[in-house]
Amino acid sequence: MKRLTDTEREAGLATLPAWAYSPERGGCISRKLVFADFAQAFAFMTQVALHAEKSDHHPEWFNVYNRVNITLTTHDAEGLSQRDLAMAKIIDALYLPFTALKQV
Amino acid sequence: MKRLTDTEREAGLATLPAWAYSPERGGCISRKLVFADFAQAFAFMTQVALHAEKSDHHPEWFNVYNRVNITLTTHDAEGLSQRDLAMAKIIDALYLPFTALKQV
Repeated sequence: MKRLTDTEREAGLATLPAWAYSPERGGCISRKLVFADFAQAFAFMTQVALHAEKSDHHPEWFNVYNRVNITLTTHDAEGLSQRDLAMAKIIDALYLPFTALKQV
Repeated sequence: MKRLTDTEREAGLATLPAWAYSPERGGCISRKLVFADFAQAFAFMTQVALHAEKSDHHPEWFNVYNRVNITLTTHDAEGLSQRDLAMAKIIDALYLPFTALKQV
C-alpha cells in the first residue's frame, strides 16, 4: 500500500469535503461526527468496526456520548493511502442515515 | 449524583489499582487496555457500551486497533462520583476474560 502523491491526495480530498487533512504522522485525515445520542453513535461505530475488520484497515477514534472523532492514516504507507480515502467514503455513507435521526 | 470527598475517592481508588486518578476536569480516572486484536477490542467496547447505555453513564474512550483508553468522570458532579467507581469495577470485570485471549 503506497502513500499518495500530493496530486493524488488533493484529487481524493476534493471528493471528501467533510474531512480535514493534517500533515501529522506523514499525513492523516479526520472528521468529527455528531449523533442524536450514545446509542446512535455506537450503532454507527459498530457499522464502521465491521467494515474496518473486513477491509483490515482500522480507524483511530474517540467517542464521548453522542460525539465521534475519527482519524484515518495508513501506518504501512507512513501517511495517507488509497485505503484511507476509500474508508472515508464508506464512513460518509454510513453516517448519512444518522444525520436524519439527529435532534437538532 | 454527588462528587466524592477526598476520603471517599481514596477509599474507592484503593480497590481499583489499575486506574489512574487525575485532577483534570474536577477529577477523573483512566485506564489503558490492550487486546489481542481489533475484533477483541471492539467486542469489549460493545459490552461496555451496553452497560453504559443501561446505566446512563458513558465513558470517554479512544480506540486504535487493539488498544482502548478509557476515561471516566461525572459531568453533573463536576468530578468523580460513585457512578465512575461502579463503572470502573464493571470495566475491570469485563476486561478480565479478554486478558486470557491476549497474544503476549
